[in-house]
Amino acid sequence: MIYVSRQEHFNAAHKLYNPAWSKEKNVEMFGPCANENWHGHNFDLIVTVKGEPDPDTGFVVDLKKLSSLIRQEVIEKLDHKNLNLDVDFMKDKMASTEILAMEIWKILEPKMAAITRYGKLYRVRLYETPRNFVEYFGDNQPLP
Amino acid sequence: MIYVSRQEHFNAAHKLYNPAWSKEKNVEMFGPCANENWHGHNFDLIVTVKGEPDPDTGFVVDLKKLSSLIRQEVIEKLDHKNLNLDVDFMKDKMASTEILAMEIWKILEPKMAAITRYGKLYRVRLYETPRNFVEYFGDNQPLP
Amino acid sequence: MIYVSRQEHFNAAHKLYNPAWSKEKNVEMFGPCANENWHGHNFDLIVTVKGEPDPDTGFVVDLKKLSSLIRQEVIEKLDHKNLNLDVDFMKDKMASTEILAMEIWKILEPKMAAITRYGKLYRVRLYETPRNFVEYFGDNQPLP
Amino acid sequence: MIYVSRQEHFNAAHKLYNPAWSKEKNVEMFGPCANENWHGHNFDLIVTVKGEPDPDTGFVVDLKKLSSLIRQEVIEKLDHKNLNLDVDFMKDKMASTEILAMEIWKILEPKMAAITRYGKLYRVRLYETPRNFVEYFGDNQPLP
Amino acid sequence: MIYVSRQEHFNAAHKLYNPAWSKEKNVEMFGPCANENWHGHNFDLIVTVKGEPDPDTGFVVDLKKLSSLIRQEVIEKLDHKNLNLDVDFMKDKMASTEILAMEIWKILEPKMAAITRYGKLYRVRLYETPRNFVEYFGDNQPLP
Amino acid sequence: MIYVSRQEHFNAAHKLYNPAWSKEKNVEMFGPCANENWHGHNFDLIVTVKGEPDPDTGFVVDLKKLSSLIRQEVIEKLDHKNLNLDVDFMKDKMASTEILAMEIWKILEPKMAAITRYGKLYRVRLYETPRNFVEYFGDNQPLP
Repeated sequence: MIYVSRQEHFNAAHKLYNPAWSKEKNVEMFGPCANENWHGHNFDLIVTVKGEPDPDTGFVVDLKKLSSLIRQEVIEKLDHKNLNLDVDFMKDKMASTEILAMEIWKILEPKMAAITRYGKLYRVRLYETPRNFVEYFGDNQPLP
Repeated sequence: MIYVSRQEHFNAAHKLYNPAWSKEKNVEMFGPCANENWHGHNFDLIVTVKGEPDPDTGFVVDLKKLSSLIRQEVIEKLDHKNLNLDVDFMKDKMASTEILAMEIWKILEPKMAAITRYGKLYRVRLYETPRNFVEYFGDNQPLP
Repeated sequence: MIYVSRQEHFNAAHKLYNPAWSKEKNVEMFGPCANENWHGHNFDLIVTVKGEPDPDTGFVVDLKKLSSLIRQEVIEKLDHKNLNLDVDFMKDKMASTEILAMEIWKILEPKMAAITRYGKLYRVRLYETPRNFVEYFGDNQPLP
Repeated sequence: MIYVSRQEHFNAAHKLYNPAWSKEKNVEMFGPCANENWHGHNFDLIVTVKGEPDPDTGFVVDLKKLSSLIRQEVIEKLDHKNLNLDVDFMKDKMASTEILAMEIWKILEPKMAAITRYGKLYRVRLYETPRNFVEYFGDNQPLP
Repeated sequence: MIYVSRQEHFNAAHKLYNPAWSKEKNVEMFGPCANENWHGHNFDLIVTVKGEPDPDTGFVVDLKKLSSLIRQEVIEKLDHKNLNLDVDFMKDKMASTEILAMEIWKILEPKMAAITRYGKLYRVRLYETPRNFVEYFGDNQPLP
Repeated sequence: MIYVSRQEHFNAAHKLYNPAWSKEKNVEMFGPCANENWHGHNFDLIVTVKGEPDPDTGFVVDLKKLSSLIRQEVIEKLDHKNLNLDVDFMKDKMASTEILAMEIWKILEPKMAAITRYGKLYRVRLYETPRNFVEYFGDNQPLP
């Protein structure tokens, strides 16, 4: 088993805002992240695939194909967009980095078989800033 | 003469949009940066001061004071804000990185004397992304 | 389950020195790290919390609260300090990055419940230099 | 258990080329990576050792010894070399980052006992570019 | 006047080899960089344009156009290539980073007018590794 | 004219302390940097040489020779040292990054002729942290 990763990036606006709450409670809970006029980030996305290398190519997955898949299915829908307003798969969800990473997993996981016979999606890591990031592994959890 | 620099950062939303133009012309000129629903960035700001070191401290400028000045006068007005809607000194200006860097210079330059006897503002460098950045030197231009 | 991380930093002095050994044996074992007059580093600390996102906020843990906790309980005790002389929880311990990371875990782990209903401390990663770092998971098994 | 890592780097040339295939099929499969005249990278290699800290030193492994081992056994054989032509342990293998990481594991794993009583090799991470990297854990796989 | 920069990257193989010298003298002068079987790097290229911002756009130069120009005229000729064998403008020249940066200037400088009314090429900065880089300013030299 | 740079690094302890002042005044002026028990940093040093490329080698200066010179004359005297106590050329001087950069210039400038016929020392850039750095140009006027 070997783990292969590809990093892509996108720039997007968002706010953290729970519509079930008053404006005051949103500000109390989310602070400046609740600014009604939005703020934004340069996101870095690292997608990891695990599997055995193909004996003919030495690849678990062709990183050009992985890069194309991520760009087509994820980056094009997020780059220079507003996560709360413009992105169909984030509709009616909190625009937190946690939720976004989990939704990116749901998009990519069923499409991996089209680009690799040997690899499976292992991890989605998403940096909101260089100091804040989340990782999601789907159901690939080790036993407790 | 020695040059001393301090890096700070902020996250903001913006769009590139000239209100004198039609929506179509804005999209033609600015592409996805004209998205009406905004996008955003993690900006990195590096401010450089030049001068002779103070013989008592070895400092051109105390970097804690420079950091406090930048945070109070610039970062607090930009962080988690919308550059087009929330920022008084960007009102009626194009929210490009070029214009923003020049406005940051105008704010900081007259305030340098309050924190350093020896130093003068030399350069404002502003990264919109790790791959796109601008530098402004005020009137400190080299001879041609 | 999702894993959320926050990076903080501090600057500190230390030396590697076992008082049970002669000066010569310390130099033999630790080389320049045993310099009696100390040396120092810019440390980067990444703390990871794992849990399910809160349905109201989309957060496993509010990263502003996690940042405040780390700064108050760890960074204030380490920044601009001497790890061997100034830090109560390092008294009579080797000032190695390994031991420091384990002590940071012991401080943070019992305090997590105060800032998150959903998350548990998962990993402490500590960079002594950009090329040397350690990771501690308490009794968790790390993900590969 | 604590995990200790050391980063080293090297510059090398390679091409991706399966000699069992025609030139056309190689170009189809590997694109510009199949350029017969080679291309190259600055590789970054991070080696992780896991174990309990030695009570006398606070170390799982002396990072100076780990660095020397990696440089002597791996970097000297790869730096400023052609992975396809100059490297004995890559002979007749695909010069992919996956295969290279696995071969580095095979070299380092049996030599760890010579530099640490307490640590075992845990992970080899190899960056081909800042955006493309692989990780290999030998047989240290978590249970399913 | 404001200075606007765009970073691009490419991966290439090269060797340092003066054909007027013996193999022994090449090895003596260039050390491992003279390896006949080549080595390679991930190069980072930063191109800086200086000028006044266009009042309609706030841009000195549209960075998407600058990026396209660099990719079309420079990156496509260098990426996944051998600098000594595959690149027409490096033929019969030493494949040093210095010479390559000067040649990139010669290519880009006459093409700037096609993408910007206001800007002129100011600087080409080329990283061969994160620790080794060169800068070329054409004839834009300050007076001594 | 072309500008060639090499980055090296060192780890050191220091404190900011003017012996002509009381302990209280030192704390007032330097804050936590005056901690009597020292603190420390991972310093990054970038040395830039300017000149014309040698027609035989394509080099302004052989970067292996520049690296060796910096390591021998500067890094060996600073790495794992206490800037206030262990370093002869810092004796009786403030251990600020400004003063240290100027002293490094004084050491390197007269030794450049021994390693390059064509180049002259142009700039010393010294990072105390990733966010705080200084640049010194001797009597050269810097480029903007």
